[in-house]
Amino acid sequence: MIAVDAMGGDFAPREIILGAVAAAQQGIPVCLFGDQSVIKKIIVEQKITISHLPLSLVHTTQVIDMGQEPTRAVLDNLDSSLVAAVNAVKEGQCAAVVSAGNTGACLAAGTLMIGRASGILRPAIGNLLPTKKGSVFCIDLGANPDSKPEWLMQFAHMGIAYQNLFFSLKNPRVGLLSNGTEEYKGSRAHKQAFELLKTSHLNFVGNVEPADVLNGTVDVLVSDGFVGNIFLKTMEATGSLVQHFITQTISSSWFDIIWFGLRRSVFKRVKARAMYDQVGGALLLGLQKPLIVAHGCSNAQAIEQAIRFAHKVVQENMIEKFNHKIVPILDIPRTITPAFSSDFNPKEI
Amino acid sequence: MIAVDAMGGDFAPREIILGAVAAAQQGIPVCLFGDQSVIKKIIVEQKITISHLPLSLVHTTQVIDMGQEPTRAVLDNLDSSLVAAVNAVKEGQCAAVVSAGNTGACLAAGTLMIGRASGILRPAIGNLLPTKKGSVFCIDLGANPDSKPEWLMQFAHMGIAYQNLFFSLKNPRVGLLSNGTEEYKGSRAHKQAFELLKTSHLNFVGNVEPADVLNGTVDVLVSDGFVGNIFLKTMEATGSLVQHFITQTISSSWFDIIWFGLRRSVFKRVKARAMYDQVGGALLLGLQKPLIVAHGCSNAQAIEQAIRFAHKVVQENMIEKFNHKIVPILDIPRTITPAFSSDFNPKEI
Repeated sequence: MIAVDAMGGDFAPREIILGAVAAAQQGIPVCLFGDQSVIKKIIVEQKITISHLPLSLVHTTQVIDMGQEPTRAVLDNLDSSLVAAVNAVKEGQCAAVVSAGNTGACLAAGTLMIGRASGILRPAIGNLLPTKKGSVFCIDLGANPDSKPEWLMQFAHMGIAYQNLFFSLKNPRVGLLSNGTEEYKGSRAHKQAFELLKTSHLNFVGNVEPADVLNGTVDVLVSDGFVGNIFLKTMEATGSLVQHFITQTISSSWFDIIWFGLRRSVFKRVKARAMYDQVGGALLLGLQKPLIVAHGCSNAQAIEQAIRFAHKVVQENMIEKFNHKIVPILDIPRTITPAFSSDFNPKEI
Repeated sequence: MIAVDAMGGDFAPREIILGAVAAAQQGIPVCLFGDQSVIKKIIVEQKITISHLPLSLVHTTQVIDMGQEPTRAVLDNLDSSLVAAVNAVKEGQCAAVVSAGNTGACLAAGTLMIGRASGILRPAIGNLLPTKKGSVFCIDLGANPDSKPEWLMQFAHMGIAYQNLFFSLKNPRVGLLSNGTEEYKGSRAHKQAFELLKTSHLNFVGNVEPADVLNGTVDVLVSDGFVGNIFLKTMEATGSLVQHFITQTISSSWFDIIWFGLRRSVFKRVKARAMYDQVGGALLLGLQKPLIVAHGCSNAQAIEQAIRFAHKVVQENMIEKFNHKIVPILDIPRTITPAFSSDFNPKEI
C-alpha cells in the first residue's frame, strides 16, 4: 500500500486526491493521509465511486505549511498528514510514501522517522533528466543546500549505484555540475569535492557545465542541493518560456495558427520526448524505505505517475537492492534508529 | 577605440578577429591585442582588405589559458593579450575592453589594473535575460562564486541603479534567486542576504524560483556568481536541447520537414525573441572603466555585437553615469588604486 500525503502541495488536497483515485483505479492500493471531512467532501463533489477501489484513509488533524522551517515543522506537527504517512511506512503498514509538500519536511521526517541507510551521511534527491543522447541521473536535486564535499562524494556513489542497478551501466561517467570545466571553478566546497572525486577510483570526467550535461557527456551528475535544484527548475522554466515564445509567435497570425495547428501532434511528441523519463516524483535516496518527493505544483496526473512510480519501486524492491549495493561501498558505518512511533489505524472511506 | 583581446575564447583568434573586422567595417575604431603574426596570417587568409578600416594592432607575446587560476594567470602573463588590453583602458588609450577569454582573469585584471569604483566590494557580471513579460537584469552571472551576503546586497543596488538609469524603472522589483520562495530556503550566505534585503528600503519581493524569474515577476535578479552562472548556462543549454528535440522530431518525417520548412521564419522569430536583449557580452559592473565579458564560445557575430555594445557603453558614458549613481548609495567608501602600468604602442596593421 502506498501512503499519500493528501494535504501537501500547491494544489492539495484536490489534485492529490484525484491522482490517488486514478492510481487506485489501476489497482494500486493507496492510503490517503489527511483531513477526512475535506477528503470525503472532494470525493463526493467529484462524484467518484470509490467503494470498489483499494483506497483507504487515515484521518490527521495537522498540515505542514510550505513556509515552515522543516525540522521544526515535523516536530511540531506529529499528527500532520506527512508525518503520519511517513510513520506508516516506518511501522510497515505502508510500503512507500508520496508527498508533494514541503521537501525539507519530507527529508526531515524521512531521516528522523524512517532513518538513513547505514553509512549514508545525507539522503539526497535523485532523478533522471533528459539529454540529447538519452538521460542523466542527477543527484542532489534539492535536499541539501550547503552540501559538504564528503556528501557530494557519497552522492556520486549513490548515482553510480542507481545507474548500475537499474540501467545496467557498468562504469558510468560522473560529472560535477559547475560554472566551467576548469579545475579551479566552483565554490569552495565544490573544489574540495572535485579533489575527492579526482583522487577516487570512479570514472570522474571532471567539472561539467549545463551544456555538457544536456549534450549527454555524463551518466551521473553530482551537485549541491541548492545548485541542483536551480538547475532542475531552470530547465523546467526555460522549457515553459520557449513554449510561450512559440505559442505567442504562432498566435500572431491566423495562417500560422492553422498551419501549425494541423501538425500539433509534432509539438506533443517533442513534449513527450522531453518528459520521457519523468515519473512525477523523485526518490529520496539514502533512507531505509522508499520516500517519493513529488513536485510542489503537481497536478492529478503527476501524482498518479508518482504513485505508479512508488508502486514500481516497491514491487521491484528498488530501495532494498539500492541500499544492499551502496552500504558496503561507503566508508563510515552508521545506523540511525528511527526516533518516533505512533498509532496507525486506516479506515475504509 | 575598443580594445579587443584577440587571443581569448574557445574560437580565438579567428572568430575574434572576424568579429573585430566586422565592427570596424561599421566605423567602430577597434584595437586588436594579440600575436601579430597570427593575426596578420588570418587576415591574409580571409582575404580581408583592412587598409581603410579603423583597425589597429598591439603585439603581445603571451596568452592566458582558460585553465589557469585567474589572479596567478594575470600576474604571470603581464604581456598577455588580455592584460595588455585592460592596461590600455587603464591608461586611457582605449575606452573599453572586450574579452571572450578566462572570465576570472578578466575580473582579476579589471580589479587589479582598472580598479573598482569607490565603495564597490566586488565587481559583478550583469546582463538582461528574456522573460515572458520583457526582460530581467541578472547580477551576478559568474564573477563571484561564494558571494558574501554584503556583496549580494551591493549586487541588488547595482541592478537597481542599472534599471533606473538605462530603462527608467523607478522602483524596480528585486528578487533573490533561490530553490524556493520560502524565507528559510537557500544556502547560509543566501539566507543572510535575504535578511539584509528584507530589512532594507528596497522593493524586495523575496526569494524567487527560476519559473518566477522567467514569468517576469522581478526586474532585478540577485544571485551568487556560481548559482547565477548555472542559471544562465542552464537557460542556454535547455534552449539548445528543446531546439534539438524539435529538429529531431520534425526530421523523422519528410512531410514534416517540408511542412515546417515552409514556415521556418516562425522559428527564426522565436529565436530572435529569445535573443532580443542579447548584446554578445555582459558588463563587469563596479569597475572604474568598461570591461565587457563575452561568452567563451562566442563566434564572430557575437564578438561584433559585444564590440558594438562596448561602443554604445562608451558613447553613452554608461559606466561613468552608473558609478556616479551607485557610489553615493554604497556604505563603505573605498578606492582601489590600479596596481600596474606598462607601455602602449599600437601599430597600423
